[in-house]
Amino acid sequence: MPKITEEQRQERIERVLGGARRCFAQYGYEGATVARLEEEIGLSRGAIFNWFPSKEELFVELARRDNERLMSLFADEGFEALVQAVTDEDADWLAVYLEFGRRLRADADFRARWQERAAPDVRERVHSQLTSAQVSGRLRGDVTVQQLSRFLGIVLDGIVLQRGMGFDGIDPNVVVRLVEDAISGGEPDAQPDPSSSA
Amino acid sequence: MPKITEEQRQERIERVLGGARRCFAQYGYEGATVARLEEEIGLSRGAIFNWFPSKEELFVELARRDNERLMSLFADEGFEALVQAVTDEDADWLAVYLEFGRRLRADADFRARWQERAAPDVRERVHSQLTSAQVSGRLRGDVTVQQLSRFLGIVLDGIVLQRGMGFDGIDPNVVVRLVEDAISGGEPDAQPDPSSSA
Repeated sequence: MPKITEEQRQERIERVLGGARRCFAQYGYEGATVARLEEEIGLSRGAIFNWFPSKEELFVELARRDNERLMSLFADEGFEALVQAVTDEDADWLAVYLEFGRRLRADADFRARWQERAAPDVRERVHSQLTSAQVSGRLRGDVTVQQLSRFLGIVLDGIVLQRGMGFDGIDPNVVVRLVEDAISGGEPDAQPDPSSSA
Repeated sequence: MPKITEEQRQERIERVLGGARRCFAQYGYEGATVARLEEEIGLSRGAIFNWFPSKEELFVELARRDNERLMSLFADEGFEALVQAVTDEDADWLAVYLEFGRRLRADADFRARWQERAAPDVRERVHSQLTSAQVSGRLRGDVTVQQLSRFLGIVLDGIVLQRGMGFDGIDPNVVVRLVEDAISGGEPDAQPDPSSSA
């Protein structure tokens, strides 16, 4: 096999992942046969499975990257940026997320393998940010950080499911405003506009 | 065909719907073939389609009943009861709900037919209750009733999706408490325990 540069390697992986996303979105996990993956990606099975050992690994890698990207966005820019991102994701992203959820539900082994893989570092970073925010009084202290984090996850997944059912037109600013009032500890930091409390 | 009583008629319809739910949950909409429906329901196709003209009508009737039951619960007993119900629904219910969502996403005709059918009466009742609650100050007035109602739907769908992905252990009381703080208008009615604000 001819040598390729790191840049070429990255380009090919992106091409495989991009085509795989379209294919999983259109046909579902089971329906995304190797022949359909080849057609959508535009590479032979040999070239595709040179980068990923199996269809499942390809699928999990898509989910892992999405998960890591969104968790990092949360850690770096906060919940508002995350709500905006989830509101903006395209139809293929929504379809793959929900298809991923369906596999977690239908296949306990898959769920176990996923839990070993899902971005522990950035998850830890988010957790410690939420803990600091609670200690400083910016987040309410009468529920645990796990419960707050779970609530944020519920809201995000709710946006995904509603959009995935074709009910668009969610106003991310309104969602963020309501969630902030739900989780705020009432310290000044959490209320940048004091006039709104008049 | 021999005459049957109204009670027998209801029993048979329930039997068909119950078996159909198990079948749709296990195989998905497309995978729930007529042969599998017959096996799960324990009736011949002639008997099944005596009550419902098609597989789609059977599927829509399940979704319509679930929707009407939950909306009525909201209208009669409030959001807390609805969160508890969605937290308690079993795996077959979750699977059918998410499968229904998948069909709404994948099939625009199906979505259009659904929107004509989905319980307009109880929807109207919920809307006018929310409007009264807003007028009386129990719900915040700085966002519309549609936006508040949308937010409640996002939270419910988020619970469904998280449970559907196998992430159980949601505490419905915590969710209700956070949502109440998100949507409350700050009037005494909305805060039954004044000591908590101390």
